[in-house]
Amino acid sequence: MTLQSLPGLAHRFSNPKMLETALTHRSFGKSNNERLEFLGDAVLNMVVAELIYQHRPDVSEGDLSRLRARIVRGKTLASIARRLDLGKHIILGAGEQHSGGQRRESILANTLEAVIGAVYLDGGFAESHEVIRSLCLPLIEALPDAEALKDAKTKLQEWLQAQGLSLPDYQLIAEQGEDHAKQFTVACIVEGLAGDRFVGTASSLRKAEKLAASQALVVLSGELNPVPGDN
Amino acid sequence: MTLQSLPGLAHRFSNPKMLETALTHRSFGKSNNERLEFLGDAVLNMVVAELIYQHRPDVSEGDLSRLRARIVRGKTLASIARRLDLGKHIILGAGEQHSGGQRRESILANTLEAVIGAVYLDGGFAESHEVIRSLCLPLIEALPDAEALKDAKTKLQEWLQAQGLSLPDYQLIAEQGEDHAKQFTVACIVEGLAGDRFVGTASSLRKAEKLAASQALVVLSGELNPVPGDN
Repeated sequence: MTLQSLPGLAHRFSNPKMLETALTHRSFGKSNNERLEFLGDAVLNMVVAELIYQHRPDVSEGDLSRLRARIVRGKTLASIARRLDLGKHIILGAGEQHSGGQRRESILANTLEAVIGAVYLDGGFAESHEVIRSLCLPLIEALPDAEALKDAKTKLQEWLQAQGLSLPDYQLIAEQGEDHAKQFTVACIVEGLAGDRFVGTASSLRKAEKLAASQALVVLSGELNPVPGDN
Repeated sequence: MTLQSLPGLAHRFSNPKMLETALTHRSFGKSNNERLEFLGDAVLNMVVAELIYQHRPDVSEGDLSRLRARIVRGKTLASIARRLDLGKHIILGAGEQHSGGQRRESILANTLEAVIGAVYLDGGFAESHEVIRSLCLPLIEALPDAEALKDAKTKLQEWLQAQGLSLPDYQLIAEQGEDHAKQFTVACIVEGLAGDRFVGTASSLRKAEKLAASQALVVLSGELNPVPGDN
C-alpha cells in the first residue's frame, strides 16, 4: 500500500512515489531522500523567511535571520516531524532501524525537509507554501522578541557601540585538560577600559567567548540578567 | 522620475516604490534595502536550488550544494548585477558614493538580492522564478562538473574512504609571524599510514589544511594534478 499523504500534512500526492522517496533514508539504499532534502531545505528556508518578513515588519535584517534560525534548526524541525508522527513512516535500513534511527533528531528533521521538497515538486509552490505555513505559523507567532535571541557577544557589541566605545577583542588565555575534555579560557578585552578584563571558561571557544562577553555586559552595563534566551 | 523596471530585468513593477527601496543602500538612510535583501537572498537560494536540482538529475546532495554555492556567492551575483548595470541605479549615501560604493562587489550583490526580494513581493513567486531563471540559467548551464568543485580535503576524504582507510586528522604544528602576517603550518595525518605526514603552510588554517590535504592526495593516490577548480 503506497501512502498518498500523511496525517496532518495539508497535501495529497498525485505521485505517491514522490512521497515514498521523501521518506526513504540513505541507509535503505541508493534511491533515497537526500536530493529532495536539499530542495526542501531551500523551500522551507524561503517560505519561513517570507512568513517572518511579513509577520515582523519592524525588525532588522539581522533579527530576521536570528528569528528564522530558531524555526529551521534541527531541534524545531524534529519537533514538527514528531507532531506529524513522521518516525512511523520513515523507511530505514535494518541497522538504523534497530538503533532507533526513526527517533533521531537529525533523521526526523532531514526527512521533514525531504517531504517539503516532495510537496513542492508534486504540488507546486503555492501548495508547499500552504503546507509550511500551516506547520510553522504557530511557532513563528510564538517566537520571542528578536532582542531576546541575541547572544551575549552581539549584545555587548551593540552596547559598546551605543556608548561610542571600541569593539571588544577576544583572546584565548588558557587551554587545559585532555583532548576529550578540553577547557578554554577566553578574555574579553575592551580598549579604553584598560583596567577591565572579563574572563570565561567553557568546553568550546565559542561558549567561553559568550561567557566572557556576558560577564563584561553585566559589569559594564550594570544589568543583572543580560542574556535571557541565549541558547 | 520613478523607475518601473531595469533594463534586462524581466519584471515591470506595479509598485515602483518597492523597486526604489530595493535600490536604496543603508548608507542613504533608515528606509533601505536590508530587509528586502534578506528576503531576496532566500528566494534566490531556493530558485537556484530548484534549477540546479532539475538541471543535474544525477548529482548528490553535497554536489548540489557546491554547485549552488558557485552561483549565489557574492562574486557571481556582482557579475550579474554589472550585467544589469545596477551600479548606476543604486541609491547611496554621499560617503559611499564618493568612495565608489556603486562598484563594490558586496553592495552590487546585496542590491541584486534586494531587487529579487522586491520582484517576489511585487509580482509573486512565478514572476521572481522567471527573473531568476533568465539571469542564472546560462551560468547554471556553464557550471563545471561537480567533481571539479570539490576541495582537496573533500577529495582526500573520499579517496581514503574508497580505500577503506580512516579519515585524516589535521593538526596545527606551527604558527609563525606577527599578527598581521601569520603563517600556519598544518599536518595532515592518516591513521594506518604512520610513516606519512603531509604538511601545508599558509596564511589561514583553512588554506594550510587544503595544502596539506592536496599534498597527501598527490602522494597517496599518485595523481599529479588532483585539485583543479579548487578556489
